[in-house]
Amino acid sequence: MALYDLMFSQLDVTSSQLLVNDGFFRDTAFRKQLSDTVSSLLDLRVIPIFNENDAVSTRKAPYEGKNCLQDSSGIFWDNDSLAGLLALELKADLLVLLSDVEGLYSGPPSDPKSKLIHTYVKEKHQSEITFGEKSRLGRGGMTAKVNAAVCAAYAGTPVIITSGYATDNIIRVLRGERIGTVFHKDAHLWTSIKEVSAHEMAVAARNSSRRLQVLNSEERRKILLAMADALEINESVIRLENGADVADAEEMGYEKALISRLTLRPEKISSLVKSVRMLADMEEPIGQILKRTELADKLILEKISCPLGVLLVIFESRPDALVQIAALAIRSGNGLLLKGGKEAKRSNAILHKVITSIIPDTVGDKLIGLVTSREDIPDLLKLDDVIDLVVPRGSNKLVSQIKGTTKIPVLGHADGICHVYVDKTANIDMAKKIIRDAKIDYPAACNAMETLLVHVDLSRNGGLDELVAELQREGVQLYGGPRASNLLNISETHSFHLEYSSLACTVEIVDDVFAAIDHIHHHGSAHTECIVAEDSEVAEAFLSQVDSAAVFHNASTRFCDGTRFGLGAEVGISTGRIHARGPVGVEGLLTNRWILRGSGHVVNSDRGVTYTYKDLPVKA
Amino acid sequence: MALYDLMFSQLDVTSSQLLVNDGFFRDTAFRKQLSDTVSSLLDLRVIPIFNENDAVSTRKAPYEGKNCLQDSSGIFWDNDSLAGLLALELKADLLVLLSDVEGLYSGPPSDPKSKLIHTYVKEKHQSEITFGEKSRLGRGGMTAKVNAAVCAAYAGTPVIITSGYATDNIIRVLRGERIGTVFHKDAHLWTSIKEVSAHEMAVAARNSSRRLQVLNSEERRKILLAMADALEINESVIRLENGADVADAEEMGYEKALISRLTLRPEKISSLVKSVRMLADMEEPIGQILKRTELADKLILEKISCPLGVLLVIFESRPDALVQIAALAIRSGNGLLLKGGKEAKRSNAILHKVITSIIPDTVGDKLIGLVTSREDIPDLLKLDDVIDLVVPRGSNKLVSQIKGTTKIPVLGHADGICHVYVDKTANIDMAKKIIRDAKIDYPAACNAMETLLVHVDLSRNGGLDELVAELQREGVQLYGGPRASNLLNISETHSFHLEYSSLACTVEIVDDVFAAIDHIHHHGSAHTECIVAEDSEVAEAFLSQVDSAAVFHNASTRFCDGTRFGLGAEVGISTGRIHARGPVGVEGLLTNRWILRGSGHVVNSDRGVTYTYKDLPVKA
Repeated sequence: MALYDLMFSQLDVTSSQLLVNDGFFRDTAFRKQLSDTVSSLLDLRVIPIFNENDAVSTRKAPYEGKNCLQDSSGIFWDNDSLAGLLALELKADLLVLLSDVEGLYSGPPSDPKSKLIHTYVKEKHQSEITFGEKSRLGRGGMTAKVNAAVCAAYAGTPVIITSGYATDNIIRVLRGERIGTVFHKDAHLWTSIKEVSAHEMAVAARNSSRRLQVLNSEERRKILLAMADALEINESVIRLENGADVADAEEMGYEKALISRLTLRPEKISSLVKSVRMLADMEEPIGQILKRTELADKLILEKISCPLGVLLVIFESRPDALVQIAALAIRSGNGLLLKGGKEAKRSNAILHKVITSIIPDTVGDKLIGLVTSREDIPDLLKLDDVIDLVVPRGSNKLVSQIKGTTKIPVLGHADGICHVYVDKTANIDMAKKIIRDAKIDYPAACNAMETLLVHVDLSRNGGLDELVAELQREGVQLYGGPRASNLLNISETHSFHLEYSSLACTVEIVDDVFAAIDHIHHHGSAHTECIVAEDSEVAEAFLSQVDSAAVFHNASTRFCDGTRFGLGAEVGISTGRIHARGPVGVEGLLTNRWILRGSGHVVNSDRGVTYTYKDLPVKA
Repeated sequence: MALYDLMFSQLDVTSSQLLVNDGFFRDTAFRKQLSDTVSSLLDLRVIPIFNENDAVSTRKAPYEGKNCLQDSSGIFWDNDSLAGLLALELKADLLVLLSDVEGLYSGPPSDPKSKLIHTYVKEKHQSEITFGEKSRLGRGGMTAKVNAAVCAAYAGTPVIITSGYATDNIIRVLRGERIGTVFHKDAHLWTSIKEVSAHEMAVAARNSSRRLQVLNSEERRKILLAMADALEINESVIRLENGADVADAEEMGYEKALISRLTLRPEKISSLVKSVRMLADMEEPIGQILKRTELADKLILEKISCPLGVLLVIFESRPDALVQIAALAIRSGNGLLLKGGKEAKRSNAILHKVITSIIPDTVGDKLIGLVTSREDIPDLLKLDDVIDLVVPRGSNKLVSQIKGTTKIPVLGHADGICHVYVDKTANIDMAKKIIRDAKIDYPAACNAMETLLVHVDLSRNGGLDELVAELQREGVQLYGGPRASNLLNISETHSFHLEYSSLACTVEIVDDVFAAIDHIHHHGSAHTECIVAEDSEVAEAFLSQVDSAAVFHNASTRFCDGTRFGLGAEVGISTGRIHARGPVGVEGLLTNRWILRGSGHVVNSDRGVTYTYKDLPVKA
């Protein structure tokens, strides 16, 4: 109490100790007086601090199994149940119980598999949760807190259990931030689209995907064709809903580029329909035999392609991405959770409705789930047990954030710092054409040139000047490395690891192709690099040594794209090295299984069979 | 002060306030008296609490740029420098500075790329660190703390900066736990194998791997052949060092199985040598053209295989794993960091020495780094910027822990809960043979059978009894699911998700193949499953629908193994779905790059070229 007093007094707040005994609460007069006392104290801006009057307590049996707190006649046996009792008695708007952990977990908080439960739903969680060891700090572990919280919440006072370690947690709770575990008697009504269902959606998508895989190739093809037809048939309603999103976006004053990406023009819809039909007609990707080996007589091993499972795709603005990704998922036999931007909310909803309407009942329309609430992203990213791959399609910031916060593999790229190196043997006219395209064609693209490296000899024979003039003519703002800024008298860049995404570019002089390679390894993002050179030996050194997802000779970096690479629809471009690298099409959504067919073969310490290891043709 | 007083008094400790002014420290007599006062207070078990005597302070200029604290004549300008000054003056054994973050970070603590620096090395960190915004809580942000810490440490008092939020941090510091950032004048001497070098080792391995890739296939082959020769030539010294490890292990009373895994018998060495030579002679895996497409006239795209980069392999007991993995890394052009078990310390050291001795200088022996200290694992697992893949080879616990604590992709499996389903159409003799092998051949293996599922009809015609008798004859302890335990009168298992890794097995009755598939999806670990059935339609349903890394028909689960699959040496068995699945050989250590060769081709809003998309043969 002295500590409370001291700490409140530092804030110029007066506090007042109220010691109560459990028996008191049986007395209606006492309860009335208690309310009055607290009201008076609060009117005087005095904070009441309750505790049990231990010195004169006569209580022996612990409170438990009583008729909860609903009739306010229960007794308490620890500070948690006292708090619950008081919250009800005093008709508190909210009860905050502070713990030594972040809130209620699905299992012992020390177990990495345990997950923080944001919203407690009695029907769901009561039987599911396993509590860890009781906190060593006195009575009132998590079990006691949950009992008190459930009692108070179902009697009408919402409760939040959160950590007392972070000093601003109470303020964050009052601000409505999503921390700790909330207990509310109506929780079962509003958790249907919260974490409960993120998990359920993923499980349903996986189950549907398994049924999708069982279909034969022709049946999957028919789903895609039906999807294309449905998009055509529903074009007017799709455009209507999209028009509403666009109107809202214009009213909100969003920038033109975003509105352009958001708008589903008739030609965009027809091109989408076309690409869905193309995917329908592509060679069946599932069940392809990748390798076939005779291990021993009549023991045949096959490595076959199969879907990854459940994909989570998080995309911004472009509603057409929803259609492309859904088609890719169906083609590759995967379940899908989609999370679109709020600016395309109505467009996404109608597209999702149109697409799922044609999924046959044998598969189930839960194959493709549309997640709508923004706060669900953190919950989704925790589902590493049911989601197999996350594909973020959006800003660098979005991608970096997602990579930083999930254990689910992420396919994508944060930075696209692409280099063009112009060798001394370059055809300067070709180099001008390539750097112009690489920078100007679409400056905001991830495959646009951000850094131009030029062989030192070109700074002496006018080549560099021609290249620089070409870019400046197009209005490109140039920043130099230490050598180039000196030579060209332009501003020096503060970093070589810079993605402008606009009409700007870094220029630097390098001594030769090896210096260029070193520069790229040191400052690049391993996305796409290009060498312009006539000397094929120099070019091959660059192609073989530059360790990026895509390395080009005498061609614009802008070619790094799934469609231009002929992969059909593109999932994204990966700068990761695991699983898929560079532009990713259907292949990146597949994994493999090993199928072994025998007739009673056993290992028996490797004396069971005589290994033959014959490669067999993959077409049986 | 009142707060300190109150809180210490709760522990029955008396505290005493000492207010000092900066000018005092110029006075030798004062400094002498200060020491005496503090000594007396400590003798009386009174805790001195220092603060600046603000009320009478006349100081104007901040302390900084002075001759540090080394001559104890400096003045202070915040509590951090006062603390440093006092620590020296009072000849403290240790100075603990409490902050609002865990310690000193390599950049702003809010930036996810920033890493906690465990050991501050002036020469290394002084220029590297970028400080974030100053803490809002008064003067004395991290810059001030580091200045004070450096001054005190180099004058002789070690300093630790740690968080003041966790109440037990001071106790943990005194226990010698590795929290916060330590400053010590000799730090540069003992950080050579700590985090500094984990990062440097990884970078050196990557640089060496790039040089290894530049070699031609024959040169890489020669390295492997030289490695095999070196192992043969040094066999006696390898066995000598290994013998010392084995003797130590025996003395420590380790279990027999571990000692057997640890021992490098002559036949094990010669089989290792043989497998290295086999890898030397395998088809070159790097630079394989996986796909070749003409995108447009004279614009040729190739997808080629290339190394992943740097692998971290954490293995227990078996020193032969070191040789296998090193050979696989060289074959696949990857850099490698190896972390072996302490029980094989001397064996690993000599094997590492022998292997790296034959790596040519053009590549550099840092291609393969041996990490020796146990505490380095957490540091290594943080290096997601320089390590591309972690392969844990050891217990389930090791694998789960690693998966739970790193953002680097992990290749491996935690559980191996393999099922054998015996259909009603099974040949019972074959089923007996297969379940016997799957359980008995090596019960501790991850591909051993843990659950036997039996078609309900077999429980009526004696088939089940035969299967059960077969296992019991071999001493297998059986536990039943609800149906089987009832029927067979055996103990009921408390969970179907159970890996016994011993002569024990779960048995359950299922209604048909689909019930078996559901059971496996629900309770399995997606490792290896087998169906024993004569009806090929039933078998194909099982093979096509069971979603595990390996699915077998009429063959023992024990075949799931890289060597038995004919993949050569095995990296491990992956139950992940991303990148590599099932037994993983060289292929799992490779990724790909896209190489595009043109002659000045540009995109120009896709009007630059006419796309042709012709598949070309992969052999040019």
